[in-house]
Amino acid sequence: MKKLLSTLLVLLCMTSFTSAQEKKAFTLDDVIPGGNNYYNLIPKNLPGLQWWENICVRTNIDDIKEINNRTGKETVLVTLEDVNKALQKGEKTYKLSLPIKKLHSLQRASLPWGDKSVIMFAGKVGNDNESTTYMFFYDFRQKELINMFRIKEENATNFDFCKENGYLAYTAGDHLYIIREGEIATAINPEETKEETSNNIIYGQAVHRNEFGITKGTFWSPNGSFLAFYRMDQSMVTDYPQVNTTTRIATLVPDKYPMAGTVSHKVTIGIYNIETGKIIYLQAGDPTDRYFTNISWSPDEKNIYVIELNRDQNHAQLVQYNAETGEKQAILYEERHSKYVEPQHPIVFLPWDNTKFIYWSQRDGYHHLYLMNTQKTQQGKWETGKDTDDTYCEYLQTTPLTQGDWLVQQILGFNTAKKEIIISSTEISPLQTNIFSLNIKNKKRSLIGNENGMHSALLSKDGTYLIDYFTSNEVPRKINILPTNGNKGVNLLTATDPMKEQYNLPEISIGTLKAADGKTDLYYRLIKPVNFDPNKKYPAIIYVYGGPHAQMIHNTRFYDARGWDLYMAQQGYVMLTVDGRGSDNRGLLFENCTFRELGTEEMKDQVEGAKFLQSLPYVDDQKIGVHGWSFGGFMTTNLMLTYPDIFKVGVAGGPVIDWQFYEIMYGERYMDMPQTNPEGYKNSNLRNKAGNLKGRLEIIIGGMDPTCVPQHTITFLRACIDAGTHPDLFIYPEDGHNMVGHDRIHLHEHITRYFIDHLK
Amino acid sequence: MKKLLSTLLVLLCMTSFTSAQEKKAFTLDDVIPGGNNYYNLIPKNLPGLQWWENICVRTNIDDIKEINNRTGKETVLVTLEDVNKALQKGEKTYKLSLPIKKLHSLQRASLPWGDKSVIMFAGKVGNDNESTTYMFFYDFRQKELINMFRIKEENATNFDFCKENGYLAYTAGDHLYIIREGEIATAINPEETKEETSNNIIYGQAVHRNEFGITKGTFWSPNGSFLAFYRMDQSMVTDYPQVNTTTRIATLVPDKYPMAGTVSHKVTIGIYNIETGKIIYLQAGDPTDRYFTNISWSPDEKNIYVIELNRDQNHAQLVQYNAETGEKQAILYEERHSKYVEPQHPIVFLPWDNTKFIYWSQRDGYHHLYLMNTQKTQQGKWETGKDTDDTYCEYLQTTPLTQGDWLVQQILGFNTAKKEIIISSTEISPLQTNIFSLNIKNKKRSLIGNENGMHSALLSKDGTYLIDYFTSNEVPRKINILPTNGNKGVNLLTATDPMKEQYNLPEISIGTLKAADGKTDLYYRLIKPVNFDPNKKYPAIIYVYGGPHAQMIHNTRFYDARGWDLYMAQQGYVMLTVDGRGSDNRGLLFENCTFRELGTEEMKDQVEGAKFLQSLPYVDDQKIGVHGWSFGGFMTTNLMLTYPDIFKVGVAGGPVIDWQFYEIMYGERYMDMPQTNPEGYKNSNLRNKAGNLKGRLEIIIGGMDPTCVPQHTITFLRACIDAGTHPDLFIYPEDGHNMVGHDRIHLHEHITRYFIDHLK
Repeated sequence: MKKLLSTLLVLLCMTSFTSAQEKKAFTLDDVIPGGNNYYNLIPKNLPGLQWWENICVRTNIDDIKEINNRTGKETVLVTLEDVNKALQKGEKTYKLSLPIKKLHSLQRASLPWGDKSVIMFAGKVGNDNESTTYMFFYDFRQKELINMFRIKEENATNFDFCKENGYLAYTAGDHLYIIREGEIATAINPEETKEETSNNIIYGQAVHRNEFGITKGTFWSPNGSFLAFYRMDQSMVTDYPQVNTTTRIATLVPDKYPMAGTVSHKVTIGIYNIETGKIIYLQAGDPTDRYFTNISWSPDEKNIYVIELNRDQNHAQLVQYNAETGEKQAILYEERHSKYVEPQHPIVFLPWDNTKFIYWSQRDGYHHLYLMNTQKTQQGKWETGKDTDDTYCEYLQTTPLTQGDWLVQQILGFNTAKKEIIISSTEISPLQTNIFSLNIKNKKRSLIGNENGMHSALLSKDGTYLIDYFTSNEVPRKINILPTNGNKGVNLLTATDPMKEQYNLPEISIGTLKAADGKTDLYYRLIKPVNFDPNKKYPAIIYVYGGPHAQMIHNTRFYDARGWDLYMAQQGYVMLTVDGRGSDNRGLLFENCTFRELGTEEMKDQVEGAKFLQSLPYVDDQKIGVHGWSFGGFMTTNLMLTYPDIFKVGVAGGPVIDWQFYEIMYGERYMDMPQTNPEGYKNSNLRNKAGNLKGRLEIIIGGMDPTCVPQHTITFLRACIDAGTHPDLFIYPEDGHNMVGHDRIHLHEHITRYFIDHLK
Repeated sequence: MKKLLSTLLVLLCMTSFTSAQEKKAFTLDDVIPGGNNYYNLIPKNLPGLQWWENICVRTNIDDIKEINNRTGKETVLVTLEDVNKALQKGEKTYKLSLPIKKLHSLQRASLPWGDKSVIMFAGKVGNDNESTTYMFFYDFRQKELINMFRIKEENATNFDFCKENGYLAYTAGDHLYIIREGEIATAINPEETKEETSNNIIYGQAVHRNEFGITKGTFWSPNGSFLAFYRMDQSMVTDYPQVNTTTRIATLVPDKYPMAGTVSHKVTIGIYNIETGKIIYLQAGDPTDRYFTNISWSPDEKNIYVIELNRDQNHAQLVQYNAETGEKQAILYEERHSKYVEPQHPIVFLPWDNTKFIYWSQRDGYHHLYLMNTQKTQQGKWETGKDTDDTYCEYLQTTPLTQGDWLVQQILGFNTAKKEIIISSTEISPLQTNIFSLNIKNKKRSLIGNENGMHSALLSKDGTYLIDYFTSNEVPRKINILPTNGNKGVNLLTATDPMKEQYNLPEISIGTLKAADGKTDLYYRLIKPVNFDPNKKYPAIIYVYGGPHAQMIHNTRFYDARGWDLYMAQQGYVMLTVDGRGSDNRGLLFENCTFRELGTEEMKDQVEGAKFLQSLPYVDDQKIGVHGWSFGGFMTTNLMLTYPDIFKVGVAGGPVIDWQFYEIMYGERYMDMPQTNPEGYKNSNLRNKAGNLKGRLEIIIGGMDPTCVPQHTITFLRACIDAGTHPDLFIYPEDGHNMVGHDRIHLHEHITRYFIDHLK
């Protein structure tokens, strides 16, 4: 008995010591997505929250609950048990030859209609040997199935449900289908269905390689009478020969990849009439070397709007078409820029005024909103924007809704009663996103949710409430239901951070340093080694991206530092990231100073980061490494070759080496064509610098990377061999542009190993 | 004057000091083929020596000289100047529209006819813009061109000249052509010439992937009346998708590659009648899963002989066909083996007796010669060889010509007057090749050229003299003309070794150690570090090949050590090579103990080598590395995975990883089919050992390796990733199974770097 007590005391003493410095060390499995403990260490979330028009609901595994907007009180609406009872009965009602399989979770159910007590979800009909996906509609008041239909195609994807008409549009292979009930979907491109999937002409999918904000290929008209869709003919686009080695004998996987300067695909826009089954195509003229972006409908379904660009991407036109005939009716707005114009948002009509819509433009140098009045046409006149490289021409009376040196990020919706637009923006800081209500009349903005950090939100249909997901460096996660009038809302969740509780974490700070232009403030994030000793000299690594459309630092958990950065800090490295010029959320001038010679200006800012590191007393100025992926892989390789005396070790993932191997849409926006900008392509072609390699550079790629195709890296190896330099290489077979799951852990072991081998 | 003298004295003193330890260090460029100083450091040679029937001649740049067999005295036969004068005139005589280009060297000329003063050489007709290859015949007594014809096809190759009829056979693309004069070659497969080159049906090329001693696809009959040729239908063979990244957009390069266990190509043998232009095919029956090897003609052109094997390669038949009708006439000899039979030599008729020919067999366990008498047919009876796994059946009276625990390597020719066969063999030692005359009557052998080392020789037509190229560890190179009667000959060259003169070389020794079977003696080569200090502990590297058909150690310059081995010895490594069981020149039992599970036995012998290294007082037993290429890459990877506690660092080049990805002919000989030997394929599949990797292993491949296709290495990477282990990788883009030229230097820098990084 005595012995046991003393043992217990020893144990207690030991436990009390493990609180601060002696918390355990984390592993890559703890901090990298795909790691076996990663998801346990993410602050708690509430999945399944959504709006049933104006009622907040949450879909859980076993039930769906209503959550009171004001009190947060939960009430059960639907139970899984009831759903499964109805599914069992439905099988007989619908005379299926095979039973409907039991549903295991309601988490993916949705409530499409505010005026109906109906949930919609995908399920399976069949047995162990065969099964088919069906879409089910269940009335939870009547407790019975009210509709079901079969998704016959195994590779069905891009589901687009229209609650106005009850049709589901989807694609399978090259084809586009719609279905409302029963067994047989209508193929919108029936003439193609006889063919083998050829990957030549594709219907209903996102086009132009998802640039210009394009994320989908089907567009229901407001009342569901029409389905507009993209048709892309890419038969003239060359295949990149990807190879799959997992087959008995390696097989070719040809992948249409339109490389900069080569022949591009041709896009047209069709409109399918639900009632007649007929298709018309917009009469947009020869689609060669043109981009058709940001499709939207007029509220009355009579018109369809497209923002069209030339191949050079320096001239955008907002064009109105007759949706019934396809005839071109008018150009409503035009914009030119000496570098590039990049429309990324379709126009949106005000719900309370069908004559006015919102247009997004960067003509003042930042994404802002402009209200255009379709009833007030005018003689267009070319004017110069606040960004003097930009000129524009308004054919409708136009009112700026927002202005200033910050940018609108999203239109979340409208509060019709108060004539407000609910937006998110960087107005408070480029490091964060806040939600505002914007009064359409006086243009005044009111903050919704006053905590500093990243807010993302789902707005109720009437715009009076939003579900606010909030996180910052201080707050792991909060979820509130907030009234959009600025009043206090109800808190649904305030999560703690398991990482902070369990592990000894490094000190992370942010700050600003001057860009190489001597005037622009750049944000940096600095991570000191775990158990930092100011008298030591640590090696340091810059994690870089550096390209457009991305920003590495936000006021969010760990200031957005990735798990690997924390891990390397634990391994004794100082980690730095700088969002240099060329990156996102700082306006167009900040971004487009890199035009026609990607890399050059961006690198100068990373060098400022390296100098900052070298100025720190606890950094070994001879041990600066760099790591990045994709554009960051391009930057890493480029920095190693251009500043070989600063950067000693680099790991470049999926890098661009030569922009002529990159795709047309993104590539030519920033680089123009190889034919029209030979100098820029030459200067940014890293093969031409292969002989400069002095330090240790490892390049890592996915064996079937469809984004930065293997040709980048393979030709770079050849250039290094010819120049007598020695990069290292690793390939993740069959992986794409990024490694996921277990491979992502292995990847970061591999990257870590390289720095420990050569920069310790 | 005084000052000059003292300077000279200082220089002399300095020179005298640089003799021993202080010779300069060599670089990879000095010792690796492709290096910019490599060819300067090879012992001098005499290129262009050949027999003009019984007269030794040497073709030089500016002339062709006759060399007296007995005295070595040289006499000019032809001058380049005279040839060029005749070419200038010939242009008019032959009424060419473009001039004949000046010839720059006679080094590649030949003298086909002993009774004619004619040389034959390829030249060009044309100008700077266009030119075509022609074959020229020049009479150096008459000093005029006597014939010329055009090789129209740019990709012409596989030239096979018949001096009896003056025709040249060659292939271009899939097709076979012959030409004797003028502009137009005859296509032997005219029905195919209309097609694009399809790589499906191929005429006149070596078949069966050059196994079974096959090196060509055309076979002139002794008097030139017929041309036998291979036709290979490989339309049913799957393509391996190789990718070329040097094009603007990477392109697919499909390569017919018959993988073990899959459908193989089909080979038939055609005979083209020069006089009638007709083709007949040998009536060999269904060619599916059969090998047609070692084609030869009877001296009277009436019969053609083929050694035929089943797909299992354990049953060979010597078959006689009627050359006029293609009818199968007789099986003359059969041999079976429980493992494999591997015929590699066509039969050869005695020049003085058309009724007898020589057949090669390993039925006694070693390659030996057997004389078969076509006039003495007999009832065949299956008998067991001295190798009891072998059974054979003689349908002709057969006399062994050679016997013993050594092997015949080559039949160089005959001395008709003395009824001798001139052969080379390993009779004196498996490490060397010596030349013998073999008396056909009493079977006695007499050594020609008594120096120990490697002899290779060219025999005069009458067999009385040979040009003997000799080298050994002691003798850099000697070239003699030797009478085959054993008398002393005349020395044409005794070269010194520039390497030994200029550089401080490591000590190289050979010896034997016991194989893992406890009884077989294995040869090893040991290289001590340059400036060896017996009190130091050096890291050591085993350079390994280990597979059949190759032997790494010979009594030749540096005992066959490669330049990289010397270089690593200079870098402070002990280098060892062991020719273990499975390798060449030690007989069939030594080779075939590896049957159906390549790697396993071979590795045990390399482990004996590693233990030997660890027993040396000057070797750090914790620092044993291994390097090898191809089969040696397979061995290296396998050793790293199977004996991870012995081998710490490995560099594997172009490795086999899984024998199911290797080709049918070589692969199935040693492994049978994956279907019939699943256990053996599983046990030798290195993917199944990927999780065992503990040390550092780099795999290096040619990006378009057509021999060990990239699928080996790429799937191994995947297995390692899945198993959580970390190999390294490098690729030489567009290179094949080996790196040549500058790439070979880069490769060895890369390999060296890896050992210095991880095994220093």
